[in-house]
Amino acid sequence: MSEFTHFNEEGRAKMVDVSDKPETVRTALAQSSIRLNKEIYEKITNQTMKKGDVLAVAQVAAVMASKKTWDIIPMCHPIPLTGIDLSFSWEPKEEDYILHIYSTVKTKGNTGVEMEALTAASVCALTVYDMCKAVDKGMIIGPTYLVEKTGGKNGDFKRIGEVE
Amino acid sequence: MSEFTHFNEEGRAKMVDVSDKPETVRTALAQSSIRLNKEIYEKITNQTMKKGDVLAVAQVAAVMASKKTWDIIPMCHPIPLTGIDLSFSWEPKEEDYILHIYSTVKTKGNTGVEMEALTAASVCALTVYDMCKAVDKGMIIGPTYLVEKTGGKNGDFKRIGEVE
Amino acid sequence: MSEFTHFNEEGRAKMVDVSDKPETVRTALAQSSIRLNKEIYEKITNQTMKKGDVLAVAQVAAVMASKKTWDIIPMCHPIPLTGIDLSFSWEPKEEDYILHIYSTVKTKGNTGVEMEALTAASVCALTVYDMCKAVDKGMIIGPTYLVEKTGGKNGDFKRIGEVE
Amino acid sequence: MSEFTHFNEEGRAKMVDVSDKPETVRTALAQSSIRLNKEIYEKITNQTMKKGDVLAVAQVAAVMASKKTWDIIPMCHPIPLTGIDLSFSWEPKEEDYILHIYSTVKTKGNTGVEMEALTAASVCALTVYDMCKAVDKGMIIGPTYLVEKTGGKNGDFKRIGEVE
Amino acid sequence: MSEFTHFNEEGRAKMVDVSDKPETVRTALAQSSIRLNKEIYEKITNQTMKKGDVLAVAQVAAVMASKKTWDIIPMCHPIPLTGIDLSFSWEPKEEDYILHIYSTVKTKGNTGVEMEALTAASVCALTVYDMCKAVDKGMIIGPTYLVEKTGGKNGDFKRIGEVE
Amino acid sequence: MSEFTHFNEEGRAKMVDVSDKPETVRTALAQSSIRLNKEIYEKITNQTMKKGDVLAVAQVAAVMASKKTWDIIPMCHPIPLTGIDLSFSWEPKEEDYILHIYSTVKTKGNTGVEMEALTAASVCALTVYDMCKAVDKGMIIGPTYLVEKTGGKNGDFKRIGEVE
Repeated sequence: MSEFTHFNEEGRAKMVDVSDKPETVRTALAQSSIRLNKEIYEKITNQTMKKGDVLAVAQVAAVMASKKTWDIIPMCHPIPLTGIDLSFSWEPKEEDYILHIYSTVKTKGNTGVEMEALTAASVCALTVYDMCKAVDKGMIIGPTYLVEKTGGKNGDFKRIGEVE
Repeated sequence: MSEFTHFNEEGRAKMVDVSDKPETVRTALAQSSIRLNKEIYEKITNQTMKKGDVLAVAQVAAVMASKKTWDIIPMCHPIPLTGIDLSFSWEPKEEDYILHIYSTVKTKGNTGVEMEALTAASVCALTVYDMCKAVDKGMIIGPTYLVEKTGGKNGDFKRIGEVE
Repeated sequence: MSEFTHFNEEGRAKMVDVSDKPETVRTALAQSSIRLNKEIYEKITNQTMKKGDVLAVAQVAAVMASKKTWDIIPMCHPIPLTGIDLSFSWEPKEEDYILHIYSTVKTKGNTGVEMEALTAASVCALTVYDMCKAVDKGMIIGPTYLVEKTGGKNGDFKRIGEVE
Repeated sequence: MSEFTHFNEEGRAKMVDVSDKPETVRTALAQSSIRLNKEIYEKITNQTMKKGDVLAVAQVAAVMASKKTWDIIPMCHPIPLTGIDLSFSWEPKEEDYILHIYSTVKTKGNTGVEMEALTAASVCALTVYDMCKAVDKGMIIGPTYLVEKTGGKNGDFKRIGEVE
Repeated sequence: MSEFTHFNEEGRAKMVDVSDKPETVRTALAQSSIRLNKEIYEKITNQTMKKGDVLAVAQVAAVMASKKTWDIIPMCHPIPLTGIDLSFSWEPKEEDYILHIYSTVKTKGNTGVEMEALTAASVCALTVYDMCKAVDKGMIIGPTYLVEKTGGKNGDFKRIGEVE
Repeated sequence: MSEFTHFNEEGRAKMVDVSDKPETVRTALAQSSIRLNKEIYEKITNQTMKKGDVLAVAQVAAVMASKKTWDIIPMCHPIPLTGIDLSFSWEPKEEDYILHIYSTVKTKGNTGVEMEALTAASVCALTVYDMCKAVDKGMIIGPTYLVEKTGGKNGDFKRIGEVE
């Protein structure tokens, strides 16, 4: 049909073949955070923010986004997640507060769930921002990073040291 | 029908009514970043990463995610975006490199596009992570924050000072 | 190109043209309910259901589904919703409890938001079912119906009388 | 990183872990209905409704919604459905007609498909409403409920008695 | 923050700004086709294909895909469509039959709907293929092209001559 | 509940049951094309098209659409794709150029991936059209067809002869 050769050689994108990778239980734990001021901190913890219970909404958003990571991140494989959990902790920081966000994702599949955990944590932080931005738009999200992963042929990953 | 009163008083969520807000041109500029090692930096800039041209894919992902921010962030209003642009810059940092990500979003609507710009920047960074994670899973995303917004009744926002 | 005439005459589907309809503020109020047993009622009101705070999750689900009604109901027009609110009331009924669900949706557009309000109420009830089904699968959803609508050329609608 | 403990103890939401549940064939049958007037009944059965063949469109909508139940119901696990079928029956009721809707969903997975069957039946009814609402907005949807399920560790479910 | 200049100069993607384009009524008419054998032709026209009424399903698919063109085509602007209609005609061709597909899309917005019409026609043809592929996988889709567009600052388009 | 029999006998749609089909590795190769003029050809190959690097964006669009084929084609089963690759070749044709598009899709599942490959190729062509339509709206997409499939109980398919 064509005298020219096919090409996909200049670094163009593909979703790499994982048919041969073993189907095992895989987990990933990611972390993000959002730094916000005292007024926001109080409205979140007292559940008086106008748009609703901030952490409840953020958790739902994170779970839902995690399930569609493959539709958000172009070269990510679709995998049926078997469990997603989000948790939080607060840290006072100078005159502000940091909300730490921890996302744990689990699957039984042939690729890892790092992206699903990172997407969950990011969307959780973005949702907190959205729920609180009427009070102050200066909030800062992140750093966001992978803490740990297990399962899969390439061995486990465990972050060493603090991320500032 | 019921002897009890309706309730939505305990901080439960709603998408607040914006019917009365004026339809004006609105813009938002957000910023994120991802810190990565030298090997990744070289594979990105030489376009030799196995999954494809990292920045090209990340830009497409960011534009597409920005358009569906309302489907990712629960209480976000759906607004028809009129323009989205992503750009990058590199900064060497100790033995690593930081890829700075700038997203600009524009609309003619009755709510702002801060969330759309923040989502674009976040998804851009997540996509870079995905395209490069086979090399190193230690990359760190963010901080992610709003730089500037214009339009709307509440006046403009402009961040003062550096975010570290 | 073809000797045959075009056909779309046998009742096949189309999204009818609304370009000429005026862009006005429109609201719709729909109602649904779910009948459930005492154990579930107590776990919901005490927030001890294993999957999480049932009503909080159901509200978020309803808001999100309402925004994508056009993607769920085939011949529904896409319209940018400007406000969505869900509220609840409880009614004891023999040995069971009925959770009444009220959804109010608002837009400024050229078609009504009846489907958006009905979809919100339905998805709210379905989500309650999902959160509680580990306890009892016998819950009954509905009736689900439109209570009231305002705006648009065809005049307002207001349901008269009780729905049993 | 934080002196505070993680928290997800106040009834906040998670998608519970099903990695350990066996992958078996699972089915669910749900039922819904919509009560409508004689004019609508005749336009449906004669296929003269302006928006198109009502039942054909409703069936397609139900199948498509069933496949994305995990994207509509927040804590629902994504599962690859292997079969979906919708059927109908008509019942005259006083001066009206009731369209009964039966949805059967099948999968080979590690959670049940109750939500997929209930979502299919609900969306089917909502679509009928949408296709016919230009004639009368007084239609009433439901009750909607699970009739039967098979497969999975918790045994089968079979509803006993009529739902009114 | 960075000593390097921003870059988006090497042909990377953006969704171009259309804020300044006028909001007018716009229409587009696209055409596609699918060539199929006599057995399929008869099963479609007799509505005896196992998966269901082929043209009814294809029309619904086309309408739904058209509404989410902006989520399928990366640099396409989201626009609220006001009308979508699909029609068909049959042409005998040697021993086969050609099903011609015509899609008309309408909006009131600030960009054209060519992509929406082309996506509708393409998805319509793809759906016919899917519904019939159990009989024969040799069906051929297309050519697919724009026939006409109206509205917008760049003037109208009208294809001259036949496409073979 | 009803004196009438269920009906789904008049050719209405269902997603046929594939629970019994074996889970094997399956591949499909589809092909499409787009005919465009010299100016467009040069802007694509020099990467000077205003909206961005055409082929890079088209590849990403194709991969993303392929993953959601089940959400675009109504009776298509959801299957977790394990690999997607797009490649191109150019053919001069009279005064125009034809861009040939080849899509290869792979899965380990219980139905074939013909639709996923055809959808990828179609969306790839549509995206090229979108990126270039500011220059000329006369581009012609297709023919689009299946070239080859392997895996599954019904044996392999291999197209014989050229498609013009």
